[in-house]
This record gives sequence, structure tokens and C-alpha cells, in this order.
Amino acid sequence: MTQPTAAMLVIGDEILSGRTRDSNMYYLAGQLTERGINLCEVRVVSDDADAITGAVKALSAAYDHVFTSGGIGPTHDDITADCIAAAFDAHIDVRDDARALLQAHYDRQGMEFNAARQRMARIPDGATLIENPVSVAPGFTMENVHVMAGVPSVFQAMVESILPTLTGGAPLISRTRRIDRGEGDIAGPLGELAQAYPGLSIGSYPFQKDGRYGVNIVLRGTDADLLDEAVAKLDAAFPA
Amino acid sequence: MTQPTAAMLVIGDEILSGRTRDSNMYYLAGQLTERGINLCEVRVVSDDADAITGAVKALSAAYDHVFTSGGIGPTHDDITADCIAAAFDAHIDVRDDARALLQAHYDRQGMEFNAARQRMARIPDGATLIENPVSVAPGFTMENVHVMAGVPSVFQAMVESILPTLTGGAPLISRTRRIDRGEGDIAGPLGELAQAYPGLSIGSYPFQKDGRYGVNIVLRGTDADLLDEAVAKLDAAFPA
Repeated sequence: MTQPTAAMLVIGDEILSGRTRDSNMYYLAGQLTERGINLCEVRVVSDDADAITGAVKALSAAYDHVFTSGGIGPTHDDITADCIAAAFDAHIDVRDDARALLQAHYDRQGMEFNAARQRMARIPDGATLIENPVSVAPGFTMENVHVMAGVPSVFQAMVESILPTLTGGAPLISRTRRIDRGEGDIAGPLGELAQAYPGLSIGSYPFQKDGRYGVNIVLRGTDADLLDEAVAKLDAAFPA
Repeated sequence: MTQPTAAMLVIGDEILSGRTRDSNMYYLAGQLTERGINLCEVRVVSDDADAITGAVKALSAAYDHVFTSGGIGPTHDDITADCIAAAFDAHIDVRDDARALLQAHYDRQGMEFNAARQRMARIPDGATLIENPVSVAPGFTMENVHVMAGVPSVFQAMVESILPTLTGGAPLISRTRRIDRGEGDIAGPLGELAQAYPGLSIGSYPFQKDGRYGVNIVLRGTDADLLDEAVAKLDAAFPA
């Protein structure tokens, strides 16, 4: 399975305090899987410059792509752009292309393009803007790091802007089988199946419903024939 | 704000593939905040031994507590206990205390305590068991790492078993004010307020509803009087 690798960095105290339940991670994970990009790791850090810069450096070095969400608005706790610049030793200031986009937007709305809003035009030198069709203030790509907003509707729009520009791998196909037995009953044969198909990822997800135990077995891989073969063996071992 | 620090490690391909939307992180974050323990970082990694062991070492060294979820069942992809043992250079095997719990459970149920199920009694030497009132198979605490199941009902029960044994800090109090204006309108005065109260965390969470912009301002701290003072200043700056 040769797929590009990716990590996500979620930036924001609101997730860590339990105030907000994350939805951007769930959305991005689904989109990347569909596109054949392998999401290998997610980190969530607070609005702290050292934490953000450290995580960006580590993830950017380890994976083909890094996607960040959060911290690019106009308020004092929006420090992501400056942290990305610091991580790459890049100069950052209000940039003409981003300023022009925002100036035109606020002119149309008859709103003041004040100092706080101009912060949203702070873009590191060398970065490419990511279009924001929802609320104009752009994200940006700096080397292999794609910097996006935390508000879910804006995050999703930015992901839709950036994903078509990335090279995906072979799409990951998955097959699910539900088996109405305890995980401990099927673990032995399932482990043998996993050993027989090292090119597939075979996951076992137990559940409890109405007092009965069951397991969803998810087989994933890029080779549909191989998947069908493994699923047939699974069905033979555990007939419905 | 002197609070113990914590990190969470979510282990499981199903979150990274977008198959499952995380709920354990959201649950734990709320519980820790209530107890005055500061959740500083979350990582999500796949069912990969190096990824798990590496994350456990890094987080265990950096924070007072680490809470893990996932990978302690009976199937081939359940490798968390062995990875924890590796991270701490501890010996691991089926342990008598855990085996006795499980043996009694399966005897009561009239089910076979087979090799796969005995895997759930693999506990590193030196670890303390965490009670599992839902499905018996225990979690464990190894040094400052609390190892729990991924199934949400079991995870929550284990968190309830372990949290009362931990020393919390001063509980974090929060106050929220909704302001029906764009974030860019209030960012200037809000930044000044944040500078005037460095002991408080002041977050700004924009939203869009029915085509109107608004912001939830969340002020957090351990000193109720200081919070009330800051909230009064915020209300004076932005009257309803």
C-alpha cells in the first residue's frame, strides 16, 4: 500500500477543556481515507506557542502532509500563523495578497478593516494561500503544512479547496462483517487470518447492544481481489 | 493555577480512518477539567507498536498523568499492554490476579477461558489493576500511565474507577459570555483584557448562526473573584 502519509494538528483549548467535541478530525479522517492518503497521527495542543511550534516541527518532519485546524482568527489567542513561521524560520507580516482579499471583503460589507482583522492577513513568506469561500480570511500552505481555520464550516471548505491539489494514493477499500459472537470467541481464527494477509489491515471492533456481544471486523487494503479472498475465508470461518 | 498536568493517548486505526468519531477524548476532557487536572495534549496513533511505545515514553516524561484508551482486548490488534511494558522495560505475562478475575467471570458465564481471552490478563509487572465493572477485563496503571479500554462504556467506567484515586488541583471555573458581534469587532478590547488578566485564560470562539456572526467568550481560572472582576469589565466593554 503506497499511500502518502499525513498527520493532523488540532489547535485549541476548547477541545482540551471538554467544552467542544471535535468534529474536524472526524471530517478530515474520512476525506483523507477516501483520497488514499494515510492519516497516521493526530495531536491536539492548546493555544501555546511552544506546544504548537514543537508539534509542527515534529509532524512536518515525520509525514508527507500536515493539516492544522484552529487559531487563525483575529483575536489575541490566534497565534497559529506566527507559530508556523517560527517553525520554518520564515518572516511573517501582513501580506499584500491576503490584505487585498480581506480589504475588498470588508469594503463590500461596509465594515472597518481594523488592526485586529488585519492580523488575519499575516501570512509567512513563501506560503501559498488556501481559498476560504465561507468567510474569505485565507488559510495557507507552508512547505508541507496546510493551515486551516477551526470553525467546522470554514475548515471543511478549506479542506475542499486543498484536497484536489494533493496527489492521493491508491484508495483504501474496506469491507465490514458483523459477527454476533464475543471477541474472545473469534480472536484465535481472526489472528490467523491477519497473519495470512499481512498486506491487509484487519481490525476488530467489539460492541454491546441490548445486552448481547458482537464484533465488527473491518478489513482494509488497496487490492480488491485480495480483500474479497480474505472476506470469503472470514465468512467460511464464521458463517452467519 | 497549580494543577496536575495530563495527556491522553488514543490508540486505534478506527479513529484515524474516519470510521469512528471519537467520544472518549471528549468524555475524559470534561472529567479532568471538573477535577482540576489540566489536559495539555492528546495524541491519536494507529495500532502500531513503535508509534504506541514512542508516544507513551514522550507523554509519560512530559506530564504528571497519561490516560490511554484502546487496544487491550483479546484480538491480534490489541497490543497496548505489551507496548506499555516495552516503554517501561518491564516484564509482561499473564498475571495471576488478572487471570483469577477473568477465570471467575468466564466460569460464571459458562464460557471457555481460551488463549485469546487469557491475553486480557497480560499485565506488566509492577502495574496496579484498574477495575472494570462493565466487562471485568481490567485496565492497569503503570507508573504514571493509566491504561484503559476503547469501548466507550468500558472506558467511562474505568475513568470513574481511577479518577477518585488521583489528586486533583484547584477546580477550573469558567464563565461564558455570548456577544452578538463579529470577532474582528471585539478583538482589540478583548486582547487588552487578556493582557490585564494574565492569570486567566480567555478564549474567543466565533460562530455563525442563521447568517449572523457572534462570539462566545470563555474565561477560565481558579480564582472566582478574579473571574467575576474580568467578566464585569467584559460586560462593561460590550453591553448586551
